[in-house]
Amino acid sequence: MVFKKLSEQHIARIRRIIGSDFVFSTQEELLKAGKDETEDFVFPPELVVKPQNTDQVSVLMKYCNEQVIPVTPRGAGTGLSGGALPIHGGISLDMSLFNDIIDIDERNLQATVEPGVITQVFQEAVKEKGLFYPPDPSSKGSCFLGGNLAESAGGPRAVKYGTTKDYVLNMEVVLPSGEIIWTGANVLKNATGYNLTQLMVGSEGTLGIITKVVFKLIPHPKTDLLLLVSFKSIQKACEAVSAVFREGIIPSALEFMERECIVWGNKYNELNFGLADDVEGFLLIEVDGDNEDVLFKDCERISDVMYRFDCSDILFADSSKQKEKLWKMRRGVAEAVKANSIYKEEDTVVPRAELPELLVGIKKIGNEFGFKSVCYGHAGDGNLHVNIVKGDMSQDDWENKLPYGIEKIFQLVKRLGGTISGEHGIGMVQKSFMPIMFSHQTLNLMKGIKNVFDPKGILNPGKIFPDA
Amino acid sequence: MVFKKLSEQHIARIRRIIGSDFVFSTQEELLKAGKDETEDFVFPPELVVKPQNTDQVSVLMKYCNEQVIPVTPRGAGTGLSGGALPIHGGISLDMSLFNDIIDIDERNLQATVEPGVITQVFQEAVKEKGLFYPPDPSSKGSCFLGGNLAESAGGPRAVKYGTTKDYVLNMEVVLPSGEIIWTGANVLKNATGYNLTQLMVGSEGTLGIITKVVFKLIPHPKTDLLLLVSFKSIQKACEAVSAVFREGIIPSALEFMERECIVWGNKYNELNFGLADDVEGFLLIEVDGDNEDVLFKDCERISDVMYRFDCSDILFADSSKQKEKLWKMRRGVAEAVKANSIYKEEDTVVPRAELPELLVGIKKIGNEFGFKSVCYGHAGDGNLHVNIVKGDMSQDDWENKLPYGIEKIFQLVKRLGGTISGEHGIGMVQKSFMPIMFSHQTLNLMKGIKNVFDPKGILNPGKIFPDA
Repeated sequence: MVFKKLSEQHIARIRRIIGSDFVFSTQEELLKAGKDETEDFVFPPELVVKPQNTDQVSVLMKYCNEQVIPVTPRGAGTGLSGGALPIHGGISLDMSLFNDIIDIDERNLQATVEPGVITQVFQEAVKEKGLFYPPDPSSKGSCFLGGNLAESAGGPRAVKYGTTKDYVLNMEVVLPSGEIIWTGANVLKNATGYNLTQLMVGSEGTLGIITKVVFKLIPHPKTDLLLLVSFKSIQKACEAVSAVFREGIIPSALEFMERECIVWGNKYNELNFGLADDVEGFLLIEVDGDNEDVLFKDCERISDVMYRFDCSDILFADSSKQKEKLWKMRRGVAEAVKANSIYKEEDTVVPRAELPELLVGIKKIGNEFGFKSVCYGHAGDGNLHVNIVKGDMSQDDWENKLPYGIEKIFQLVKRLGGTISGEHGIGMVQKSFMPIMFSHQTLNLMKGIKNVFDPKGILNPGKIFPDA
Repeated sequence: MVFKKLSEQHIARIRRIIGSDFVFSTQEELLKAGKDETEDFVFPPELVVKPQNTDQVSVLMKYCNEQVIPVTPRGAGTGLSGGALPIHGGISLDMSLFNDIIDIDERNLQATVEPGVITQVFQEAVKEKGLFYPPDPSSKGSCFLGGNLAESAGGPRAVKYGTTKDYVLNMEVVLPSGEIIWTGANVLKNATGYNLTQLMVGSEGTLGIITKVVFKLIPHPKTDLLLLVSFKSIQKACEAVSAVFREGIIPSALEFMERECIVWGNKYNELNFGLADDVEGFLLIEVDGDNEDVLFKDCERISDVMYRFDCSDILFADSSKQKEKLWKMRRGVAEAVKANSIYKEEDTVVPRAELPELLVGIKKIGNEFGFKSVCYGHAGDGNLHVNIVKGDMSQDDWENKLPYGIEKIFQLVKRLGGTISGEHGIGMVQKSFMPIMFSHQTLNLMKGIKNVFDPKGILNPGKIFPDA
């Protein structure tokens, strides 16, 4: 799709709608809005716009729709699939001023928030009232709830508590036409027409602009325990994962990390985790609940499982400080890898017992195509992040040979019953691989839905669909 | 919409597609397929068809689409919103021969099933392997999993474990065009394009025919405890509900019943629950888990809450036989009411702390419009079933006055942040009330989606939309 450039007249009108103080066009602002955390891509918009309320978004969208101006919504810019990159120019719709926690309803265990609230800020606000909002992507200290919804974000605790999609009850959304709708109701169960709420979740800003969200909350568990288990064999570590669940235990986190995650994490985060020479992989396992005795028993049973899979060592975090340190390392893996080299992060997910086969397959494909990978992620969900490290690979191989390797990884994922993104979304970087997952007919259904919401294709153009 | 009647030629062709032994046109069969559990409606189809495999469904749908023959999918016929009633005639697509549990994957805690499997049969099959499929609508002994998906069914355990929608990972679906698609992947997290899986759930057979389902399973809890708490005030009983959650406890069931549920239930189910003269309502509360000591402590804390809300008596079920008896009574309420009088069942749901206001409001509206109601349901989810009893109301009032009373109930529900169906669906009986919940624009989006899947409108016509 080709869009015309914004005219002076367009810009003047947009300034009147949003207020001149909230419309930006300096090189610095455009460059900033042209990047997110996806590799080293830069796609600057023509204008950055920071609306302050829903009505402004509505008037703006109506105008952009009439004028066929592309609009790319943007949260905190922490995305890993290029969802916020304005690859067709136009407007970057920066939602950072929608940052109000409107209401924490302790009677109903619900909260109404704006999409520009930082995930951790929201978590801490509800925790003060004894409540729990579990979704916790690694970037929780900076990412926005709206971005979490757009990309269907997860995080370590999804294994017990589910992802963002499992906590949203209702949303206020502005359609490309400027119409303002609510997708559902503020209830725990809903069988009233098609599920527009879940259709919006994971739609990556291509169907509408989220301007308000109602989340459900749960009571905050009173305590947790954390184990770091080391293995000489990464395959054995992955085999141990599904055995934990077969034992009848659902941990609140079950994370896998390859050796390099700790080596590079130590360096990047200035930590000093001891690391025996023969250790190749780790499981980080958390259990949570209200009764510490029960949790200790769970840890004993988990330890028994770990020994059955030849673990080398089990470190029991004996203070909240040590827990924090372990989580800091785990959450910092992507940054640690990035600090080391340019990389691509693939977000594979398979049924959890297929993890060992996935891991072996990835390493084999790496050998074949000449790339090194560092794997880690939410093993309890079968969700393995594959960081492909550029290192000293030639630019030509990186650009022209590697995509075939990635395609082969995704074909393996598909064969194992999995999919090509568990929590990062498709955005720009995975769209060419969508035909691996979906038939022509299925993609046509999705395009049909896009067309119902956004007939002129102005909203986040160039995303999700292979021919977009 | 007006459809032509089936011709002899149509019927002959359909017999060739499905096999003559699986196509039925006797008065008896047509009458049976013309009813479900919704009031006393009868809308016989012109033909009943029982396909045996996906390919047959595909060929049939392609043909019906070409010939513009209406097709109404049917599960076990236990629906309460008329979803399976072929109100425009045509074909009743009976899915009862899709009754195979294809695979219970103990490694991955997943199962692949056909949609005609009875919910309880599936639950018992996975329980034998120590696994748990929690959704448990009252009709679980006869309803089909496919119907549960179509109507987004819940049940008592939804309060802790979620509804049917929370257990489906992936579905094979035949579109009206005859195309066969898979909606997702067999994974716990998925951020790969629009969520077609959740779009299908609750779409009431209007978008496609579900022919296979992949469910996630969880470890089966080892034990449970059950309390029956009686109250002199139904309002106090409802007030106690949200207080349980604010105490930090999530019960595995928290059901409310008015006095008549027990009176009529005793009679219908030949039970003999003692009932003090001044008792007006009950809460049935279950907790489950792996550690009985913890559950006993939870019951103590729940009891403290109940006493704070002036409960009269707490009965602790002291044997599995007594538990069964209590659940039999609870699950039999709808049948018990139906045996007593013709009734309409409204499926209201509000944020759970608004239950007392909803209940008071319903009784007030009943007084105003001259109807008696028996209320019960999944109070922990804020989901209250309102059985409006015809009793000696005149047929004229029942048909012409009552709808205004129901409209007033639904307006109250909406004002309290709720919706007009929590788990029964809209189907035929609630479609005229949809504009209470959704704006014209939102309904147009839903119709747009319907049109993408089913451009000729042959699939379950006359459902969900007010002008359908």
